Amino acid sequence: MTEIKVLDHGFVRLDGSLADDLSVVNSARVSFAQRSELVVIETDDDEYGTYATKFDLSDKDKGLISYLMRNKHGTPFEHNVFRFHVKAPIFIFREWQRHRIGSFNEWSARYSKLEPEFYTPRYENVRSQIGKPGAYEFEPVDSEVSSQFSLELYNKNHAMFQMYEWAIDKGVAKEQARLFLPVSIYSQMYWTVNARSLMNFLSLRNSEHAMFEIREYAKVVEQIFIEKMPVTAEAFVKNNRVAP
Amino acid sequence: MTEIKVLDHGFVRLDGSLADDLSVVNSARVSFAQRSELVVIETDDDEYGTYATKFDLSDKDKGLISYLMRNKHGTPFEHNVFRFHVKAPIFIFREWQRHRIGSFNEWSARYSKLEPEFYTPRYENVRSQIGKPGAYEFEPVDSEVSSQFSLELYNKNHAMFQMYEWAIDKGVAKEQARLFLPVSIYSQMYWTVNARSLMNFLSLRNSEHAMFEIREYAKVVEQIFIEKMPVTAEAFVKNNRVAP
Amino acid sequence: MTEIKVLDHGFVRLDGSLADDLSVVNSARVSFAQRSELVVIETDDDEYGTYATKFDLSDKDKGLISYLMRNKHGTPFEHNVFRFHVKAPIFIFREWQRHRIGSFNEWSARYSKLEPEFYTPRYENVRSQIGKPGAYEFEPVDSEVSSQFSLELYNKNHAMFQMYEWAIDKGVAKEQARLFLPVSIYSQMYWTVNARSLMNFLSLRNSEHAMFEIREYAKVVEQIFIEKMPVTAEAFVKNNRVAP
Amino acid sequence: MTEIKVLDHGFVRLDGSLADDLSVVNSARVSFAQRSELVVIETDDDEYGTYATKFDLSDKDKGLISYLMRNKHGTPFEHNVFRFHVKAPIFIFREWQRHRIGSFNEWSARYSKLEPEFYTPRYENVRSQIGKPGAYEFEPVDSEVSSQFSLELYNKNHAMFQMYEWAIDKGVAKEQARLFLPVSIYSQMYWTVNARSLMNFLSLRNSEHAMFEIREYAKVVEQIFIEKMPVTAEAFVKNNRVAP
Repeated sequence: MTEIKVLDHGFVRLDGSLADDLSVVNSARVSFAQRSELVVIETDDDEYGTYATKFDLSDKDKGLISYLMRNKHGTPFEHNVFRFHVKAPIFIFREWQRHRIGSFNEWSARYSKLEPEFYTPRYENVRSQIGKPGAYEFEPVDSEVSSQFSLELYNKNHAMFQMYEWAIDKGVAKEQARLFLPVSIYSQMYWTVNARSLMNFLSLRNSEHAMFEIREYAKVVEQIFIEKMPVTAEAFVKNNRVAP
Repeated sequence: MTEIKVLDHGFVRLDGSLADDLSVVNSARVSFAQRSELVVIETDDDEYGTYATKFDLSDKDKGLISYLMRNKHGTPFEHNVFRFHVKAPIFIFREWQRHRIGSFNEWSARYSKLEPEFYTPRYENVRSQIGKPGAYEFEPVDSEVSSQFSLELYNKNHAMFQMYEWAIDKGVAKEQARLFLPVSIYSQMYWTVNARSLMNFLSLRNSEHAMFEIREYAKVVEQIFIEKMPVTAEAFVKNNRVAP
Repeated sequence: MTEIKVLDHGFVRLDGSLADDLSVVNSARVSFAQRSELVVIETDDDEYGTYATKFDLSDKDKGLISYLMRNKHGTPFEHNVFRFHVKAPIFIFREWQRHRIGSFNEWSARYSKLEPEFYTPRYENVRSQIGKPGAYEFEPVDSEVSSQFSLELYNKNHAMFQMYEWAIDKGVAKEQARLFLPVSIYSQMYWTVNARSLMNFLSLRNSEHAMFEIREYAKVVEQIFIEKMPVTAEAFVKNNRVAP
Repeated sequence: MTEIKVLDHGFVRLDGSLADDLSVVNSARVSFAQRSELVVIETDDDEYGTYATKFDLSDKDKGLISYLMRNKHGTPFEHNVFRFHVKAPIFIFREWQRHRIGSFNEWSARYSKLEPEFYTPRYENVRSQIGKPGAYEFEPVDSEVSSQFSLELYNKNHAMFQMYEWAIDKGVAKEQARLFLPVSIYSQMYWTVNARSLMNFLSLRNSEHAMFEIREYAKVVEQIFIEKMPVTAEAFVKNNRVAP
């Protein structure tokens, strides 16, 4: 799959998946030693019709997925997997990698030199935090502050990158030279996760309580989830986005 | 995939997978923000040649997999998944389901009635246990004992199944009627697991220390693993079957 | 701690714990680099008063625990542990050991010989299952059936144990001789679990949807949880027993 | 327990534990439905002797722990727990929090303002990296470079902190103002982990292949582990520091 751009330099790319709604149905139906198949929902009747036949879950199987979601029967949602390739700033990966049910491999600043790419928020996304923990609201700051903030951020972060390069040139180990680098620098990772854990991620990170920047990523991840497992994704939303 | 028969009534069936050696290489190479592709290893030059072109990992990438395995860099082996449908006796599932890194859904004897299928060892597989825990050896028992054992097992287990049916007929809940049922009765499950956890399973269950019956399953699982991830499987064996 | 009896031969024993409400508060307050202490809630003013001083969480800290529970902030509930020693029938352990966030070690029927102890329900607990999966109700069966069921169960299960002993006497390995043994036979295990995973267990197993027999165990486990973490336990109940 | 200082501003503090060697023995012996007690190894015979009696594992139980370690029987090492309070720079937490079997709660730069404390290596610890990935060696850089590096690091990092404060003063949300902050800034966390996962951590992080800075922490963690579980810790070292 191609990269879907996120923020100023980031992306999400689905590197591979084994994910469909039928896997949820069948791993639930094994409780009864039963198994479902997709049903024909539309047949094109022209002469090449066989190529146009569409399959989908039966209504009964769709109902089963809703039932499982509502009643927090979570395990049938684990028999699938999404493998993502993600480029994002470190302060976002810090939140992301706290999701322990899943697998991560990330660009190592011990082994190789990072690139001078830093997240700089667009003017309209520089914000103030109003209220107290647990009940924050955010408002845009005034335009003068936002442009000043973004400019300073850009300049200072790149100046720190120059210090990083200076230290490497002087012979300092990359793992130490990075002590200059701000958390807004971009990194990359592979993330492999099943739909149950993914819904937990979406529930927390594609939410009004989530940090704006990680939510931008979570929105893209959710689009990919919807494409691959539309019935499950719909049941998740109907269940108030509570993961089973 | 079709079912591969195991023991007298069991099977292993690969229900789906997202698993190849390249996923190991690329999730490791992301440490350097790099990515590999398969290389052409054989091109058939007849007129339909393009269909006969074979791809494989480069030698360098094969070497990387060996390196990761040897040095216990385990996470790159997690970005893939195997979904198995398994039919096996309960006493085998009891060992199998202790492997916590993976997902299980099983036939429920609370919700539905089980079938009268019990594992009865073949005569040559009835065995004696010699030695003490940690250093057991097994030898076949003499043929009279083995035939008597298998016969009694068959008869008594089926008699218990009749009690199970009798209780259900009397109106006793299935979840209680099963209290008659021996651990040799067959059940079914879906099991989804990544290659790292799978190698840990194989290391313990396809081993001379493993119980004969679970090993029969583990052998089939290993064959499927070898087909999907041949380079990884070979590196695992060379590493004395120690999972990374 | 002493064993608390459950069912006819089982028990739950708290073997050790590191669990109090303050651990929840402090692992949450580290978000602000802050730390709480218990406050004095009662001072006995007689001459030996110091020994009678009672400590508790402040009201603010109690409120924090409610807040965390309600908003599904689960991680602060993980910094504690309960180690249980449990004796229960195998069909109960089969459900219990599917809870993957926790640690299990169990009596091995490969290594040692089991005891002739089987779960036989009391007459009033033999039941019929009415309705369909997802909406079962249970009613007692009539007294004739229940006494007949319990009697047959007792006799047939013990007869199977005699077959087990017969096979062992004949030299059959214990791991194979057990193929005669019903799932109602008692086993033992150690189970170590943190409060977050414990609440998930209680939510599913001390519930009207749970099987009666495992619920008997879950009730005892919940009592122990309440004693050690009363504020957390109360917040869990107020949150409709949904684990965070 | 009091804080043990690590690096220039960090510490490790054992906040609580339920950890002793006997828990390993007993969760292993439950395989045989057996249980061990500590034995008296020394009795002081003076008049206050009872207080001086020392207990320890029997030699047989010590041998069992060695056996379990050698043969990779890992689960008995999970029935215990260590709860640490740690203060360390973010680039160290980034490695630490990749250990998924365990629980973390950390100071949040979304909710509160961080302190101006940055890791600055001592002169003798500024180093060059020689060789290639997988076979690095490190050597001290010359003294002029090291003093220049440390000085620049100190100044530039504190200058970035001033930018952070400037942004907060201007009304920018803390979660965005932090985009200036280098990964060398100190944070705090609670980490709760069992001995099996702890040994895996020690195997990777108190190793010659580990980064110097995280190893300084791992050494302290290992000292605490040795104090609480001396027999287990010794068996771990004898097993070439391979976690079971």
